[in-house]
Amino acid sequence: MSLLVVGSIALDTVETPYGKGQEILGGSATYIASCARYFVEPVRLVGIVGNDFPDKYLEFLKESNIDTTGLQIREGEKTFRWGGKYDEHLAGRETTFTELNAFETFDPIIPDAYKQSDYVCLGNILPSLQLRVLDQIRDPRMVLGDTMNFWIEGMKDDLLKTIKRLDVFVLSDSEAQMLAETKNLVKAGSKIIDMGPPVVIIKKGAHGALLMTKDDMFTAPAFPMKSVYDPTGAGDAFAGGFLGWIAKSRDHSFENLKRAVVYGNVMASFCIEKFSVDAIKTLNSNVIDDRFKTIHELSQFSLPD
Amino acid sequence: MSLLVVGSIALDTVETPYGKGQEILGGSATYIASCARYFVEPVRLVGIVGNDFPDKYLEFLKESNIDTTGLQIREGEKTFRWGGKYDEHLAGRETTFTELNAFETFDPIIPDAYKQSDYVCLGNILPSLQLRVLDQIRDPRMVLGDTMNFWIEGMKDDLLKTIKRLDVFVLSDSEAQMLAETKNLVKAGSKIIDMGPPVVIIKKGAHGALLMTKDDMFTAPAFPMKSVYDPTGAGDAFAGGFLGWIAKSRDHSFENLKRAVVYGNVMASFCIEKFSVDAIKTLNSNVIDDRFKTIHELSQFSLPD
Repeated sequence: MSLLVVGSIALDTVETPYGKGQEILGGSATYIASCARYFVEPVRLVGIVGNDFPDKYLEFLKESNIDTTGLQIREGEKTFRWGGKYDEHLAGRETTFTELNAFETFDPIIPDAYKQSDYVCLGNILPSLQLRVLDQIRDPRMVLGDTMNFWIEGMKDDLLKTIKRLDVFVLSDSEAQMLAETKNLVKAGSKIIDMGPPVVIIKKGAHGALLMTKDDMFTAPAFPMKSVYDPTGAGDAFAGGFLGWIAKSRDHSFENLKRAVVYGNVMASFCIEKFSVDAIKTLNSNVIDDRFKTIHELSQFSLPD
Repeated sequence: MSLLVVGSIALDTVETPYGKGQEILGGSATYIASCARYFVEPVRLVGIVGNDFPDKYLEFLKESNIDTTGLQIREGEKTFRWGGKYDEHLAGRETTFTELNAFETFDPIIPDAYKQSDYVCLGNILPSLQLRVLDQIRDPRMVLGDTMNFWIEGMKDDLLKTIKRLDVFVLSDSEAQMLAETKNLVKAGSKIIDMGPPVVIIKKGAHGALLMTKDDMFTAPAFPMKSVYDPTGAGDAFAGGFLGWIAKSRDHSFENLKRAVVYGNVMASFCIEKFSVDAIKTLNSNVIDDRFKTIHELSQFSLPD
């Protein structure tokens, strides 16, 4: 099954209590594709970088069996750069700088060869650009979209238009609270389903994720981590694991959506072990399945006799 | 199986965004006993009130099949009173007043008939008083103890002595973080197990609870609540449901401790639906088991084929 990823590709400068990463590979599409490729290959990537994008990163994408036909390399421009600094508990993060560069005028042109993509993962980009992607795709089997607080605050109309066209809408707890205007996540999930997307997933960081449809609900714990190195990209890794599993299994039943949420949590747990995609890039299906089983053991219990 | 509860009995004045309860029945022992009695009867209660304690509350305890032989009614003194006000999201709470009254000089004397109690639930009272209770009990099968931030901050030595004698130590996420001096709850749980108690349960409010032993871990979601009326007593209701189920089933296996955590979450979910024990007092085993099944459905998933 074909899986298309559209999102940002960035050079991140990240500071955590444990170290500093300078111009390391980041961006939503990077994390999503690096995770999804463990489930389906090749993963189709659409994004933009400048011609300063390091060869080693380009090689990494290609070696990861990520199809970069849709990667635009803009001559004479620089790659999107983002800087972030986490507080001592990795709970809060401050954006130290944002240089959009080539990303500012990104037009997500979908190559003809990608227009028939079964699964589409819209990483966090402008909602209007997410819509523009969907207008170019023919009959996808499932579209997953992510978002961020910035679009909820500043581009709500576009966002509401976009999420009506999603099959699965993934957002963080604080984003769900902001969008639904309630602190209660169960109520927030219901309100967001009423806005259009039939499946809503609320990511709760160390508390796992909540999957909701109109009639069903599922909650999966996060993989228990004794230490976290860098939380950047965890939400994107979740999306990559979720949609990767769905594309691999081609099963859209609620029972299988649950498993996809667990695979999402698994991929997020690897992501936060190191900077950038450093921990993700050395995985294999055995270690991924081991963590899946750990989360299974951690959360299963039997009814009383 | 006999279950003994020792803790506070109070008249609470609670303000939430939804209303105000004036001198309503509260206190850790009240919540614990009111929940545990759905699993084992009678529940033995040791606590203290003044002679102003309303007859209707005394009748409620007796009608609930709670054995009040160990309830001290101190002549010429007033009952412990506590006032609390919650913020608009029920996330934070401010103590508006504390009048210890008779509770200030509480000496938890265990009646002879209670000294052979199989299960002992130590509600949140001074750690030194919890120890004093344990010194009077003969060979209990399981002792569960709760605590609060106040003792961690101000009476850490006493607390550390006390928890060494517990079989199950229950505390909230913020208390665990404070005691273990780490924000990471998995690490906090491990560190607290090293302090003595073989079983540690960290209550995470709307995120459920984390059960840990040296070798095992289990995480149960909370019952999904679309609205919460008053969170007061939720932690005590959890303890009552947990130990009530263990006392009823007499099974200390990890598999059954998991179920007990889920029953704890179930009882906490009823507790927060109304002021005081108003929602708890009208329950029956069918509605309790229904919520148990809901949490089961909410969190179970199957391994991929």
